[in-house]
Amino acid sequence: MINKLITKIQKTNAPIVVGLDPMLNYIPKQIQKRAFDEYGETLEGAAEAIWQYNKEIVDAVYDLIPAVKPQIAMYEQFGIEGLKAFKKTIDYCKQKDLVVIGDIKRGDIGSTSEAYAIGHLGKVTIGSKTCRGFDEDFVTVNPYLGTDGIKPFIDVCKSEKKGLFILVKTSNQSSGEFQDRFIDGKPLYEYVGEKVAEWGADCMGDSYSYIGAVVGATYPEMGKVLRKVMPKSFILVPGYGAQGGKASDLLPYFNEDGLGAIINSSRGIIAAYKQEAYAQFGDASFADASRQAVLDMIKDINEAIGK
Amino acid sequence: MINKLITKIQKTNAPIVVGLDPMLNYIPKQIQKRAFDEYGETLEGAAEAIWQYNKEIVDAVYDLIPAVKPQIAMYEQFGIEGLKAFKKTIDYCKQKDLVVIGDIKRGDIGSTSEAYAIGHLGKVTIGSKTCRGFDEDFVTVNPYLGTDGIKPFIDVCKSEKKGLFILVKTSNQSSGEFQDRFIDGKPLYEYVGEKVAEWGADCMGDSYSYIGAVVGATYPEMGKVLRKVMPKSFILVPGYGAQGGKASDLLPYFNEDGLGAIINSSRGIIAAYKQEAYAQFGDASFADASRQAVLDMIKDINEAIGK
Repeated sequence: MINKLITKIQKTNAPIVVGLDPMLNYIPKQIQKRAFDEYGETLEGAAEAIWQYNKEIVDAVYDLIPAVKPQIAMYEQFGIEGLKAFKKTIDYCKQKDLVVIGDIKRGDIGSTSEAYAIGHLGKVTIGSKTCRGFDEDFVTVNPYLGTDGIKPFIDVCKSEKKGLFILVKTSNQSSGEFQDRFIDGKPLYEYVGEKVAEWGADCMGDSYSYIGAVVGATYPEMGKVLRKVMPKSFILVPGYGAQGGKASDLLPYFNEDGLGAIINSSRGIIAAYKQEAYAQFGDASFADASRQAVLDMIKDINEAIGK
Repeated sequence: MINKLITKIQKTNAPIVVGLDPMLNYIPKQIQKRAFDEYGETLEGAAEAIWQYNKEIVDAVYDLIPAVKPQIAMYEQFGIEGLKAFKKTIDYCKQKDLVVIGDIKRGDIGSTSEAYAIGHLGKVTIGSKTCRGFDEDFVTVNPYLGTDGIKPFIDVCKSEKKGLFILVKTSNQSSGEFQDRFIDGKPLYEYVGEKVAEWGADCMGDSYSYIGAVVGATYPEMGKVLRKVMPKSFILVPGYGAQGGKASDLLPYFNEDGLGAIINSSRGIIAAYKQEAYAQFGDASFADASRQAVLDMIKDINEAIGK
């Protein structure tokens, strides 16, 4: 799957991923109204609104981008109904040949991590059959529990040819509270980065490992160090745009081959029509605004990394 | 909710929680057969088997215990259908007046943590209405992203009178890889413990904070230190029984008032009938075996803590 991701990045010339993190207040009123008219102001109604919103955005941008990253929390807040919209979104994006990165940030002790890995990347045995749960292509994983929390995810990736992005340095303001603490002269995130490189070493695709890392766009100095610590790991970079990360900060996340990083934008794309710059599209053409925002983001990033 | 948990612990004289972490291979063949006959060897069939299994166990033990802890991964591995069984289990346990601790180990940046908090503990606004997603009483949370990943959970707990158990030191073998790293002469888990105490200080129930911690039974020396670092935090202790934690190691997790800790057992209770000690119950009476295992666990722990 890492090879497919890279091929698609090269084909689209777009090292970006669109975060499908819908909030009800992003969704144009006409879509909410149609959904609520049919299902009421219920969890089901909210899930229907999210699904219709996602579908229009995906239809408008799928040919421009290699991948999407649905953030499961935004669906999980609507319980079972929300998770049905999550699953529908995954399946639809895969039909459109997009690589799907499930932003699930799971992580637990061994046997429990195995259950998450099976549910999101693999297949579960039921009697004499096997079935698939959510079936993303990549997922994000939290490393706080150490190797035996990560290993089951890696094992499933090996057999399924899928991949991970492990949290190393997150984009949020208080990420430093624990991640930046110094241990024998090095911050914790660097130790985690070293582990990611170690875990990824025998999980190689053609040129990159399928065990990648998450490093926030908001910390470019750390991105520079971590790029060197994990030369063969793809880096998923959240925090561009709405969270404050600038394109000019992104160069250190890439390798000299122009690869090695994929930049996420969520709100900046899916709620583009709410920004002044795209206000001319209006509510009805919100998906066209998203398309324009994708084109602008690709240009912005390619200029910054000199492509 | 922390007051309710404590009252129920005192009433049952059982500082324990039963982990509802079903694996298909724990479930007696007759239950699997009935479910598969009705729904096939499908995700739906597996979910039905899990639900029937949980229900029998809860019916057999609910009067002996204060709380249950369903591990969401074990349901999530069966996708949407599995999560329906998770939700059914929560609702059923609440009907039985059990405190429900959702073992979800979520944690993300602020706005995303807020969505998880709303989905699992709070209510979500949909148009002019509010609805509840999973609606547990407590959840477990991962601290790797720092304060702004935890704060939204605390805010929802405040308004809903619910609670958290934050991962401090987990029970697994490689938990030390990051959690035990020394920073200025103190291990990381101790810093996290200090933060838990700080976060919990203005979240007090009558005698304990509703912001608690997870500390594995497999590390009693660390439990002793952490008990002092977080005197007002309830400690959820996994790792007793199947994972190797012994009752004699549990004393340091409790305060002098005999409170302050709640010990989890999952496999040791729900799959008791598979152990030699309870083999006489047989497959058909698996729930009676679970009841006996609960009685034995309560005795074992109370003897060890001198109650």
